[in-house]
Amino acid sequence: MNYVQAPISLAPQDLLCAEALFSVANGYIGLRAAFEEGYPEDIPSVRGLYANGFYDIVDMKQAEPLHGLIDKKQTIVNLADVQGIELSAEGRRFSMFEGGISGDRRELDFDAGTYSRSMSWEAGNGCELDITVKRLASFNHPSMMVIDYQVTARNRPVALSFISRHEGDVRNYCDPDDPRLASHSVQNLLVEEVKKVTRLVSSRDCGGSGLSSRDCAGSGLSSRDCAASGLNSRDSGGSDPAVSCVTSRTSRSGLAVCTAVSHTVIVAEQSEDRNGSENKSDNKSENKSENKSHAEAVVHSCETTVTGAIHSINLNALPGQAVRVIKWVAVCDSQRHGADFAAAAVAELNQAMEAGIDRLYAEQAEYVKRFWDHAAVTVDDGSDSQRISQAMRYNLFTLLQSASRDSYANVAAKGLSGEGYEGHYFWDTEMYIQPVFLLTQPELCKNLIAFRYRTLAQARDNARALGHRQGALYPWRTINGEECSGYYVSGTAAYHINGAVAHAVEQHWLATGDDDFLVAMGAEIVLEIARLWLDVGHFSGGEFRIHSVTGPDEYTCMVDNNYYTNALAKKNLHFAVRAAAIIGSEHSRRLGFTAADLDGFITAAAAMRLPYDEGLGIHAQDDSFLSKPRFDLAATPPEKHPLLLHYHPLTLYRHQVCKQADTVMAYFVCSMIPDSIMKRSFAYYEDITTHDSSLSRCMFSIVAAMLGDAEKAAAYLTETVGLDLNDSHGNTKDGIHTANMGGSYMALIYGLAGLRFTEAGISLRPLLPEGWQGYSFRFRYRSALTEVSVDRSGCHYRVLEGSADIVILSY
Amino acid sequence: MNYVQAPISLAPQDLLCAEALFSVANGYIGLRAAFEEGYPEDIPSVRGLYANGFYDIVDMKQAEPLHGLIDKKQTIVNLADVQGIELSAEGRRFSMFEGGISGDRRELDFDAGTYSRSMSWEAGNGCELDITVKRLASFNHPSMMVIDYQVTARNRPVALSFISRHEGDVRNYCDPDDPRLASHSVQNLLVEEVKKVTRLVSSRDCGGSGLSSRDCAGSGLSSRDCAASGLNSRDSGGSDPAVSCVTSRTSRSGLAVCTAVSHTVIVAEQSEDRNGSENKSDNKSENKSENKSHAEAVVHSCETTVTGAIHSINLNALPGQAVRVIKWVAVCDSQRHGADFAAAAVAELNQAMEAGIDRLYAEQAEYVKRFWDHAAVTVDDGSDSQRISQAMRYNLFTLLQSASRDSYANVAAKGLSGEGYEGHYFWDTEMYIQPVFLLTQPELCKNLIAFRYRTLAQARDNARALGHRQGALYPWRTINGEECSGYYVSGTAAYHINGAVAHAVEQHWLATGDDDFLVAMGAEIVLEIARLWLDVGHFSGGEFRIHSVTGPDEYTCMVDNNYYTNALAKKNLHFAVRAAAIIGSEHSRRLGFTAADLDGFITAAAAMRLPYDEGLGIHAQDDSFLSKPRFDLAATPPEKHPLLLHYHPLTLYRHQVCKQADTVMAYFVCSMIPDSIMKRSFAYYEDITTHDSSLSRCMFSIVAAMLGDAEKAAAYLTETVGLDLNDSHGNTKDGIHTANMGGSYMALIYGLAGLRFTEAGISLRPLLPEGWQGYSFRFRYRSALTEVSVDRSGCHYRVLEGSADIVILSY
Repeated sequence: MNYVQAPISLAPQDLLCAEALFSVANGYIGLRAAFEEGYPEDIPSVRGLYANGFYDIVDMKQAEPLHGLIDKKQTIVNLADVQGIELSAEGRRFSMFEGGISGDRRELDFDAGTYSRSMSWEAGNGCELDITVKRLASFNHPSMMVIDYQVTARNRPVALSFISRHEGDVRNYCDPDDPRLASHSVQNLLVEEVKKVTRLVSSRDCGGSGLSSRDCAGSGLSSRDCAASGLNSRDSGGSDPAVSCVTSRTSRSGLAVCTAVSHTVIVAEQSEDRNGSENKSDNKSENKSENKSHAEAVVHSCETTVTGAIHSINLNALPGQAVRVIKWVAVCDSQRHGADFAAAAVAELNQAMEAGIDRLYAEQAEYVKRFWDHAAVTVDDGSDSQRISQAMRYNLFTLLQSASRDSYANVAAKGLSGEGYEGHYFWDTEMYIQPVFLLTQPELCKNLIAFRYRTLAQARDNARALGHRQGALYPWRTINGEECSGYYVSGTAAYHINGAVAHAVEQHWLATGDDDFLVAMGAEIVLEIARLWLDVGHFSGGEFRIHSVTGPDEYTCMVDNNYYTNALAKKNLHFAVRAAAIIGSEHSRRLGFTAADLDGFITAAAAMRLPYDEGLGIHAQDDSFLSKPRFDLAATPPEKHPLLLHYHPLTLYRHQVCKQADTVMAYFVCSMIPDSIMKRSFAYYEDITTHDSSLSRCMFSIVAAMLGDAEKAAAYLTETVGLDLNDSHGNTKDGIHTANMGGSYMALIYGLAGLRFTEAGISLRPLLPEGWQGYSFRFRYRSALTEVSVDRSGCHYRVLEGSADIVILSY
Repeated sequence: MNYVQAPISLAPQDLLCAEALFSVANGYIGLRAAFEEGYPEDIPSVRGLYANGFYDIVDMKQAEPLHGLIDKKQTIVNLADVQGIELSAEGRRFSMFEGGISGDRRELDFDAGTYSRSMSWEAGNGCELDITVKRLASFNHPSMMVIDYQVTARNRPVALSFISRHEGDVRNYCDPDDPRLASHSVQNLLVEEVKKVTRLVSSRDCGGSGLSSRDCAGSGLSSRDCAASGLNSRDSGGSDPAVSCVTSRTSRSGLAVCTAVSHTVIVAEQSEDRNGSENKSDNKSENKSENKSHAEAVVHSCETTVTGAIHSINLNALPGQAVRVIKWVAVCDSQRHGADFAAAAVAELNQAMEAGIDRLYAEQAEYVKRFWDHAAVTVDDGSDSQRISQAMRYNLFTLLQSASRDSYANVAAKGLSGEGYEGHYFWDTEMYIQPVFLLTQPELCKNLIAFRYRTLAQARDNARALGHRQGALYPWRTINGEECSGYYVSGTAAYHINGAVAHAVEQHWLATGDDDFLVAMGAEIVLEIARLWLDVGHFSGGEFRIHSVTGPDEYTCMVDNNYYTNALAKKNLHFAVRAAAIIGSEHSRRLGFTAADLDGFITAAAAMRLPYDEGLGIHAQDDSFLSKPRFDLAATPPEKHPLLLHYHPLTLYRHQVCKQADTVMAYFVCSMIPDSIMKRSFAYYEDITTHDSSLSRCMFSIVAAMLGDAEKAAAYLTETVGLDLNDSHGNTKDGIHTANMGGSYMALIYGLAGLRFTEAGISLRPLLPEGWQGYSFRFRYRSALTEVSVDRSGCHYRVLEGSADIVILSY
């Protein structure tokens, strides 16, 4: 099941949730799956179009503005609304809330790389239509997306009208009651210019500018199709040469963006196929003979307004005749595409339209195929549902949609599927997402690390703002590299983000052996982070101590010697020394690091305090954690969860209660802990962890596997892998949970399969839970592509490309 | 020197500072000492009129709105501007910034209970005037204040015009750059009605309604004065019957207030006295003969506007002839004066005007005399300056001005002299101000405790909001009893306010022996606070521990087992048990307290953790404090102080650095610590304390004295006693520092003199610093009034009223 499919619920919460779940994105742009025609007025919708790394700046007032507290932040910006398409059949406007709907479904297709919504509609005036709207955000052409609106009249000729909107007057979504969303609506994007330009298509659609007539043929377009789409006349159908361009600028960040929109109409031959799921290529070849006569009947127009444009398309459809209105959208911004970003958007649009829709679909499928070649995964948990396999694939596909392909951006906590956490990047990237890409798409990791390198100057400034004389401190949440954390107590104080960034550099180097990248970017990050650890900590009583930081568990804040943080710092310091050795003394000198620095790293790492409770025989989450009273979880009713929405932070901080894995997570990240301690700690922290964070269960799953407990590992994995598909946190409407997606996959490969890589090589330590028939996955490591399968007969691996030696360990 | 006097600086910062320093107040209303005629437009002014406990509600946006964080707060409200009086001499408007000014001074007179501003002015058009403007906020009639504007033409007859304004369109002051002030301007007060009413003065001014003609004579008013002030005709001078009433309502709190304003004119006989400091009673008797003719030449008018009123008074003054325009202001609000508060304001105004200005001055002087009878203080530090004596008296007088006389209000951190800290009440009252009043004006303490009793329900709600199942938690900052702390980390988390409130009840009972008050109010407060301590703490390892609270030192937050907090909690628990015994079982039952409760208190108190460091031999400020690195104060330049304005809170929290006395303060409050430990602790904490809080030095002074170090005690006292008079914190403009004022006096009587009272009685342990000649003070204890003097010959005391046994201890 390489897709997710669902009937369409019209319940308001389901609609919002589906908007996020079925969004399409390509790492640069993302479009939420609202209905093109909208919902009735009283149903909320987040009709978002986002560009990764494109932000505005908004004020963030502090209730009491202490020195150094952040008073402005970046926020992701909802770009022009390009989804609007209103279909009317003989004057009756299509709506899923009126008339008769049947056969409705949504589908995200992981092989095609497309999203579609399909239904049959009885308009009430006798018209019956099969409608399929397909969307694609092109992986190959990051500025491009299309909405491919396909209508077939079932029972009689129907006059169809499409009003396709391109509206620049938009705002971000806000919810004053939810701390995780913007609390008031700001006009972040101001329309600067609306323009209607004419595509130069006459001679170029076939043959010109890179497209030979053979290309046309190859891409499934007959020369007649090409001609039709090249007609300039307003009423001659096919491709509308009118391109509406909306150029907008943010209110404060100074970034500008252009959306360009144009349309193609393809009218197919009349057909008896009424189920709406036509086969494109079959259709196409059948269409040629009838195409021209209908195309000539297509009437286009485009009117601009002050803030946008309205494209109208009118035509008559015969029964069984598939009519496709393809809305082409290009997005370019001033950050990536320079001063001529508006011209770039039109050029991208032209180029894509010239290549044609089938070319776009084919390239997309090819891109996704290459991804799955390296990331194929199956889980047979013994049921017929394939639920886990499907969720794993959904998660991987969504991560592929979410991750930036350049250093201007990163992976937002909600990907490009919503405005939750305002589009900010967190440690999620390094600890939950890079570990997945590193073994499937390592080239993406390079971009993600390059983002941290590009923002190293801001991290240095942030360290100075926090009073550190040396080193860099990465912001807890950011888009442009500057701190956006309004509540520093569980934000800026979470210094472990530094640990995550340095850890990611180390992992990248281990998995790729890419010394050059370490020289170019990685080492500088790692060394600056090591310097920061030296400044934030100090020696006392023979130990190196780190005070007043917040670990991963956000229900315990500003503590001394958080085990996870200190363990990671120790690891970072060791790797800093290693990295200096790898890049050599000349490069170290260039980066300003001396032997004295390295000595400092070694000494601090050796003396690092890692709190341990002799009585309990477990690691203490921090110096004071174990002396606090336990929160009475047994007496806490379900409606009081998640705790953060029902208890004052002080109440939580005062008790032993964890939002998420903290000490337990350190066992995975830093390893080399005796099983006996790990086992006691696991049991202890498991008892007091609510998993109110979506980043928690996957880590418990991995460590359960490290302890050989396959059942528990599988239980955690099963609970968490479908978090968004099941909306089990109730907030998928604000965007999908990318870290959980990565974490779920990690629970399979690092957890159950026990995959590890070190300088010495790679190993597996597989477990197969009771009742599971098996699982398999692929991964890349250096030059090799390997497929691992674990089943009742044991663990097998097959090197598909390159060569690899894998050690298989057992419990 | 029972006054403060200063030449008038026109530097903008000095003007703002003087507005606060020379404000007049009576515990209910307070008026800042702006110039009646205003400043040039580019000079900022806070022309505040405030009523204690009169507040509006404003939003306080949290950067990240976590559950339970406060999102609205109360704020003190600037009431109608009643200070405006523009004097013109033959068309030339008086301004201290134009023409020639000489002999200028301001004076706050602690005997008269008045403020005055005096100067001679050469108008530039040949007119020369001596001007004295005297203000009084009546202690006897809390709704009343007057501005007594006296002008004498020096050299020739002058046509004088007075434009006296009463303006309801006002706003609070704001400064977006200062965390201690409101950051944006809100219209808190909206004018509901402006009315002109006529005073019924004809027959009553002399003889009617309580004023016999003998009263008139007694108060210095001749019967002709009375007649003159009773004339109804608009142009007959004397008293203007027109009263302007401005009724306003707050934007959100629903409180309403009425200001009523009217005028009297008294024209004296021509005089040769040109120095402007005329003797009132002499003047008066001389005036009679000439009075009528001039009075008849006085022309009054009163015009109302949409938001206020303008009173005009025109008259001709002969050379040497003192002309007084007395502006009478009455303030009544809906909270204290009920639905008819506007009528009450007019009635108060009438009554006061009928009694006459001299009566008001006489009553005021009498009230203040009675105060000094119980609070007389002298300090002879060996210099001629009397600087310390004067500052002590200024501080005491200002506290007398600041303290509420009823349970609707308390003592704001800035008194009624500014809008700093938005008029909020803190622990300052209980720990720094009540200890002073308890020995001078114990009846005021009752009101202040009654305020806490009146707001006990809100404190219970606050405890529930913080997750406590029992007890009450007083808000860190409040006006109406609800928490206003936007930054809970050093606000709501400062649970030691609870300790302060219970401690104040205990001290009141000790000093007064008032069991009835304990039954009526005190015990319930104390028992509810004890219950809270039981809920916030828990038993662990044989100790009773209190986690995640903030002690007095705001540079160290959310710690475990803050020594001060725990010591105070222990003391509270002991007193709760004692209080239950005092009020008896029947009242205990009424309050819902059982023997089990009391057992719990005893057990927790006995097991209370009081962190002690064996190695250093000192008490640790909290569990982790001593393991942090020290902040490098030696390397911190002066311009980086106060640290809170230059360092991120995390930087401060991470280091050993104290804003103020914390552990050291506990030694004073809870006492009974071996000198050796106290001495080491004092030295240790002294080294790392910046005294960035104005509440710090006084406590170091007291504990230095406890250690027998008279020089250090005197040095701290000397440094801190004139904090406002010297503007040594640079922010007196926002209001005077009431806690520091109380603390400075405490440093004398509890510190140098070593005054203590217990159930056993009172004791002194006096010290006389080198070079000091002596000091003396009076205090009340139960039925006794005692005067203590310490000089080179020793310590003497004299019981002036009642009887007292005082033990004098020595070092």
